[in-house]
Amino acid sequence: MKYGFSQRVRYLKSSAVRDILKVVNNGNVISFAGGLPDEGLFPVDAVSNAYQKAIQSNRKALQYGETEGVYHLRQQLADRMKQQKKIIRQPEDILITSGSQQAIDLFSRIMFNPGDVVLTENPTYLAALQVFSSYETNVIPVKSDQDGMLENDLEDKIRRLKPKCIYVVPTYSNPGGKVWSLERRKALLQLAHKYHVVVLEDDPYGDIQFEQDDTPPTLASMDQNKYVLYTSTFSKTVVPAMRIGWIVGPHQIIRLMTQAKQAADLHTNAISQYALVHLIQDFDLDQHIQVIRDTYYQRMLVMKRLLDQVNIDGMSYIEPKGGMFMWINMPETINTTVLLQTAVDHGVAFVPGAPFYVSDPKESTMRLNFTNATPDLIEEGMNRLVSVMKKAQMQSNEKAN
Amino acid sequence: MKYGFSQRVRYLKSSAVRDILKVVNNGNVISFAGGLPDEGLFPVDAVSNAYQKAIQSNRKALQYGETEGVYHLRQQLADRMKQQKKIIRQPEDILITSGSQQAIDLFSRIMFNPGDVVLTENPTYLAALQVFSSYETNVIPVKSDQDGMLENDLEDKIRRLKPKCIYVVPTYSNPGGKVWSLERRKALLQLAHKYHVVVLEDDPYGDIQFEQDDTPPTLASMDQNKYVLYTSTFSKTVVPAMRIGWIVGPHQIIRLMTQAKQAADLHTNAISQYALVHLIQDFDLDQHIQVIRDTYYQRMLVMKRLLDQVNIDGMSYIEPKGGMFMWINMPETINTTVLLQTAVDHGVAFVPGAPFYVSDPKESTMRLNFTNATPDLIEEGMNRLVSVMKKAQMQSNEKAN
Repeated sequence: MKYGFSQRVRYLKSSAVRDILKVVNNGNVISFAGGLPDEGLFPVDAVSNAYQKAIQSNRKALQYGETEGVYHLRQQLADRMKQQKKIIRQPEDILITSGSQQAIDLFSRIMFNPGDVVLTENPTYLAALQVFSSYETNVIPVKSDQDGMLENDLEDKIRRLKPKCIYVVPTYSNPGGKVWSLERRKALLQLAHKYHVVVLEDDPYGDIQFEQDDTPPTLASMDQNKYVLYTSTFSKTVVPAMRIGWIVGPHQIIRLMTQAKQAADLHTNAISQYALVHLIQDFDLDQHIQVIRDTYYQRMLVMKRLLDQVNIDGMSYIEPKGGMFMWINMPETINTTVLLQTAVDHGVAFVPGAPFYVSDPKESTMRLNFTNATPDLIEEGMNRLVSVMKKAQMQSNEKAN
Repeated sequence: MKYGFSQRVRYLKSSAVRDILKVVNNGNVISFAGGLPDEGLFPVDAVSNAYQKAIQSNRKALQYGETEGVYHLRQQLADRMKQQKKIIRQPEDILITSGSQQAIDLFSRIMFNPGDVVLTENPTYLAALQVFSSYETNVIPVKSDQDGMLENDLEDKIRRLKPKCIYVVPTYSNPGGKVWSLERRKALLQLAHKYHVVVLEDDPYGDIQFEQDDTPPTLASMDQNKYVLYTSTFSKTVVPAMRIGWIVGPHQIIRLMTQAKQAADLHTNAISQYALVHLIQDFDLDQHIQVIRDTYYQRMLVMKRLLDQVNIDGMSYIEPKGGMFMWINMPETINTTVLLQTAVDHGVAFVPGAPFYVSDPKESTMRLNFTNATPDLIEEGMNRLVSVMKKAQMQSNEKAN
C-alpha cells in the first residue's frame, strides 16, 4: 500500500556515518569512522554502583518524573558548569535531554518555521544538519578558517538573511577538530548581541582537551544568558548508552523546550538521571576525564606520527588540540568517497568529508577518529590507510601524466 | 529580550494533569489525579539485578547503539506480542522508543502536514492530543458510545474529511476506562481498509485486565500489517522511569520513523533496553503482571464500593474492566473544574474531564485513578471526595430551587 507521508520526510535520510558503521561492525576492518568513545575506558564498576544506588535507594526514582529533569542533577550540572566552564546559570535554566542530539531537536522544534535561516560552519556536525533540514529550514554556511567564522561574512549574512540562529561547535569541532580563537568568539557574540540572533553552542567535546588551560572560554560564559544556548552531554565522558545530555540558556526558551519535550517523550530516563547523581557524588569524574584526555591524546599522537610519514604533495591537516577527530585535506584529485571503498577492501575505514558540508563539499577531505581503536590498532590501521592513500596518489599522478 | 519562536509553539501547553500533579505532590492531599502505577508494586530487586547484568556483562551495552533498538529486545517483543496479543510481526517491524509517547510523536512527525485531519475518540488521551496539535493537525472527534466509535459517523467523517489517521485507545482507555466491542473493532478496520486510512492503536493498558480472556483482540492482530500501527510500553508493567516503549507496523512506516528518531535522539537508552532483555529472561514478568492486575482490580472495587454509596441523581459511571481509570459523569449542573478546587481544599484530588475533549467538553465529567493509592487511602480519599460531591450537589439543588 502507498502511504501519505508528511512533507518533512523528504528531508529525512539515514546518516552516511551510521550506514558505514553498520557495514564496518561486521568484519575485520579497523575503523576510524564513527565517533565512538573507547569502550575500554568505560567506568563500568562506577556506573554499575551508581545504577544500584539509584534503583535501590528510592522508589520515586523509578516513577514518572518531571519533564525538566531530576532537580539534584541540574544542581550538580550548574555547579560543574560554573567551576569548569565559568558558565553561571541556575538549575531552573537547565533542561535534561535524551542526549544533546535531543537538545538540538527540541530547540529546532520551538524555533524554526519552514524557510527560516540557520547559519552554520561548513563543514559541521552532520546530525545537526539533519535536524535543521527536517524542520525545513534554510541552512546557510558562513565562510570560516581554522580560527572560526570570518567576521565580515558572518555580519554580511546576518544583515542580508536575518537568521533565526547561528549553530556552532567552537571547541574541538566535529568534523574539523578545530578550536575557535578568543577573538572570533568575541566577534560572534558581539554580532549576536548587535543583531539579536540566538546562538546554539554545541559542546560535546569541550572536556576532552589535550593541553592544560589554553582553550578559550565557552561562548556561554561570555553571555549574560540572553543569546547563547549551550548544550553538552555525558556520552563522551561517562557512557553513551545512558543518553543523558542537557541544554542551558534563557529561561523563556528552556521553558518552551520543556513543553515541547513533554509532548515528545514526557521526560528523560530517570533511572539514568539518578544514577548520574550518584556517580557525580561518589566517583572522581574529573580524574576519570583526565584519563580519557591522556589516552586520547596519546592515540592522536600515534595517528599523527604515521600520517607524518606520508609524503603526498597537497595533503594537509592540523593537529587537533582536543576532541575525537582529525580532519585531513587530501590532494584535490583524490575523491575520498571513492577512496573509502578501496580502504574498506584493505581493512580500514574512515568517513569521507563531503556529507559534513552544507554546500560546496570538498570531495578530497576525510575525517579520522582516533579514540575508539587502541594504539596498536591505530598503527596497523594507519599503515593500511597510508598504503591505500599512496596508491591512490600514484594512480592520480599517472592519469595526470 | 524578545525571541522569535516557531508557529508551533502556539500549540504547546503544559498538561493540566502534570500541573495539578506538581501541586498535589507537596502536601497532604490524597490524589486520584495523575496516571501513576503503584510504586509499592515495582519489582525493585528484579530491576536492580537486570541493570547489573546489562552493565556488567557487555561493554557494547554501554556504547552508542542502533536507532531501531536492541535486536534481542525486539525479538522478545515479537514473541510476547505473538503469544499474548496474537500480533504476528517481525522484529524488523518494531522500533524501540523512549516510552510510547515518543512513538506517537515520531509517527506524527512522519505523517502530518499542517491541516491534515486526525480522527479521534472524544474524550481521548490528552498527551496524544497535545502531540497532534503541535504538528498543526486538524483533530476531529468521532461520535462514540461505551462500545467504541459509531460506524456511521466514522464512515461519514472519513469520506468527507479524508483523514490521514484514526487514533484510538480501544482497550481500557484513558480517560474513559472503556473497552471497544469486537464488532466496533471490526467495523473500524473494515473502514480503514476500504478507505486506506492508517490507524494508530495506542495500547498502554492492555495488559491490565481484571477478568480473564474476555477482552476482544487487538486491532493489530486483525490487520495484515497494512493499516494498523500498534504501540505499547513497559511503563505500567515494569517501571515508568525506564522510558521504554515500542511501536510495530508496516515496515515502510517504521523505517521512516527510525530515520526521524535518528535525528530526534539517535537511539533509546540502551542500558535500559539490555536491562529489559535480562528482566524478561530472568524474571517472571507474567506472574508480576498478574499481581498488578489483582491489586488494581481490588483497588477499583474499593473505589466503586464507596462511589456506590453516593446517592446523587444524574451521576453515573461504568465499572472498568481493566486499566487505571474510572470515568464519572456528574450531574450536568456540576462543573468539575470548580469542584476540583474545593476537593483539593478538602484533601483529595482528581482530574476534571474537560481537558480530555477535542471539542464540546462535558464540564461535569471527571477521571479518577485507582492504581496509585493503597486501599486505605482510597477509602479515606473517597470519603473526602464523596462529601465534597454531596455538598456540591446540595448547593446546586438549592440554586435550582
